[in-house]
Amino acid sequence: MRILITAGPTREYLDDVRYLSNASSGQMGYALARSAIQAGHEVALVSGPVILPPPEGCEVFQVETTDEMFAQSEKLFSECDGVIGTAAVCDYRIKTRKAGKIAKTGEAISLELVETIDVLAELGTQKGNRWVIGFALESQDARFNAVRKLYSKKCDAIVLNGVSAIGSTENYVEVIDQTQKTVATYSGEKAQVADSLIAWIQEHIVAK
Amino acid sequence: MRILITAGPTREYLDDVRYLSNASSGQMGYALARSAIQAGHEVALVSGPVILPPPEGCEVFQVETTDEMFAQSEKLFSECDGVIGTAAVCDYRIKTRKAGKIAKTGEAISLELVETIDVLAELGTQKGNRWVIGFALESQDARFNAVRKLYSKKCDAIVLNGVSAIGSTENYVEVIDQTQKTVATYSGEKAQVADSLIAWIQEHIVAK
Repeated sequence: MRILITAGPTREYLDDVRYLSNASSGQMGYALARSAIQAGHEVALVSGPVILPPPEGCEVFQVETTDEMFAQSEKLFSECDGVIGTAAVCDYRIKTRKAGKIAKTGEAISLELVETIDVLAELGTQKGNRWVIGFALESQDARFNAVRKLYSKKCDAIVLNGVSAIGSTENYVEVIDQTQKTVATYSGEKAQVADSLIAWIQEHIVAK
Repeated sequence: MRILITAGPTREYLDDVRYLSNASSGQMGYALARSAIQAGHEVALVSGPVILPPPEGCEVFQVETTDEMFAQSEKLFSECDGVIGTAAVCDYRIKTRKAGKIAKTGEAISLELVETIDVLAELGTQKGNRWVIGFALESQDARFNAVRKLYSKKCDAIVLNGVSAIGSTENYVEVIDQTQKTVATYSGEKAQVADSLIAWIQEHIVAK
């Protein structure tokens, strides 16, 4: 089986220096890539800027912006059996990026942010026979928002985690499938959680 | 001699997940800390979020936002002989930070950004007998802007570098002193540039 995994943050620039991003470390996605390879699968990993070494035996595609992540992922998805979207995509971009570095003037500046493309939702609309596993990072109304994303992104299942997962080596996750129920929970080091998630996907998504 | 060095980026949050920042790696500041220690000085290093190991023999103070960097630096400055400000401070913050994680609605959002405190300029106003070395990262009108910052931040000298320095292991710098002229240029690995800069400061700023 060949699996597409997205990982890490993306960046959306205001000017040549400043950008909007988040503290995603990419650890969950890289751990899933390692687990999937150990389980005998091929992995194409599309990664935003992180400082992790590429997992052994894994094709890694480096991207920076959300548009780049989408373009690379779409290209790879056609040759994959499914996708796991762990990337903490920067889902707003600055409407009008400035050239150079905006110089301070003492005045406030007003920025208009528009939504970036929803990478996983786009892949969801193109899925056909392929499976799609999403990740939802929620701070409030967590299960409600996760189920909403499960449908809007056409996921087979969605993995819910909290804000405390960002940058941490550990994670607590709930797997919600199309019954809208939590059907599995895993906690511990991200490497262990990744092993469990790959096994769960194999048993409950791929085998069906 | 005891030297205060600021390094790395700072982050300014929109909500609990998203922030404004830049790709500063902290390498120049950490290299200067190492060079200064090797030259027999004490260093207090105030660092934004970077992934570098703390230089041996260096007190490191981790901060995240610009306000935190200022508060920590001000506290330390009173017991130092001078400051080298290499930090690529996030010089805008979001006027009204939201709690939780802003949920996407499909609509554009408008953000008001206000300037953060100018860490080095504030230390400059408090300098008394102490010396202040600034760094200017400029994309256009570079020397003009560097000289403007030299005065507005009450620096004894300012080190000018270009946007290509961000995240790079190498650097090309010009040292501009109060004559408004470039009095030294150094290029190469940041570790070498740091050695040269510490020697220059020792000879031209401290010895005078």
